[in-house]
Amino acid sequence: MIILGIDPGYGLVGFGVIEKNGGNINVLDFGCISTSKDDKLSRRLEIISDCMHQLLDKWKPDEMAIEKLFFNKNVTTGIPVAQARGVILLSAQERNIPIYQYTPQNIKMALTGMGKADKKQMQFMVKTVLGLREVPKPDDAADALAVAICHSQTNLNMVGNI
Amino acid sequence: MIILGIDPGYGLVGFGVIEKNGGNINVLDFGCISTSKDDKLSRRLEIISDCMHQLLDKWKPDEMAIEKLFFNKNVTTGIPVAQARGVILLSAQERNIPIYQYTPQNIKMALTGMGKADKKQMQFMVKTVLGLREVPKPDDAADALAVAICHSQTNLNMVGNI
Repeated sequence: MIILGIDPGYGLVGFGVIEKNGGNINVLDFGCISTSKDDKLSRRLEIISDCMHQLLDKWKPDEMAIEKLFFNKNVTTGIPVAQARGVILLSAQERNIPIYQYTPQNIKMALTGMGKADKKQMQFMVKTVLGLREVPKPDDAADALAVAICHSQTNLNMVGNI
Repeated sequence: MIILGIDPGYGLVGFGVIEKNGGNINVLDFGCISTSKDDKLSRRLEIISDCMHQLLDKWKPDEMAIEKLFFNKNVTTGIPVAQARGVILLSAQERNIPIYQYTPQNIKMALTGMGKADKKQMQFMVKTVLGLREVPKPDDAADALAVAICHSQTNLNMVGNI
């Protein structure tokens, strides 16, 4: 089963593609979709949509896992991120790919057994689980791989798709 | 020039289509795109996207005007609205339709000359400007017509498209 993990963003959308075969997990791809401040808001959304469709064409994931958004403080910054997340969800829905969302605590628990693990612990576990020599860069790509790994280890009967 | 006004939402997306000919404004269409609580988040975004494309096909607007989002209080409720707004912006961008956004204050000023006009004053002005017998229903459709009227009265040199 191929899982696409997404760390939603606006300037940077992290993505990570893994394949789960029984107990084995292999990494297939990771990186970021980036958009420029010089482009208009609507054009940036279009770039994210186009790149998502390219990723979906290339890897044909069976399922997508994405971080749930929370805005406690900087809400104004959060609006463009939520707008981009809407476009990302649409791209998967248009291909009937089931989408699952996880909170940062869900992801930390799944990877480290601790809901309050720090960034370094998380990155170490992503590297270890995937058998990589280095921590995947940039951070957004490592975060996307983390949500994909979290999903691969989750009992789907326990979570609903969105 | 045909202008599509949008009141962004999630359960209800208000739309209003007007035609501006010199100093005259005529209403062509108004209503709501509605999505059901029984559908999944991603399916609701897809319905909004599909209905937006139907509207854009039918009316071929030259420009789109949409309310700017602000979340001061209920941020959690705001996230799905922002996600839907991202999908709405994408639908217009995919057809290279210029998009303009206005704050509620901008819209109130344009219609009534007062940045703090109440809902009844706004609805009265929408009815009057468009020469309608009744206030357009539901409220989301009247709000969408208001943002379209606001845009029709705005000097485009004064605002940027998004």
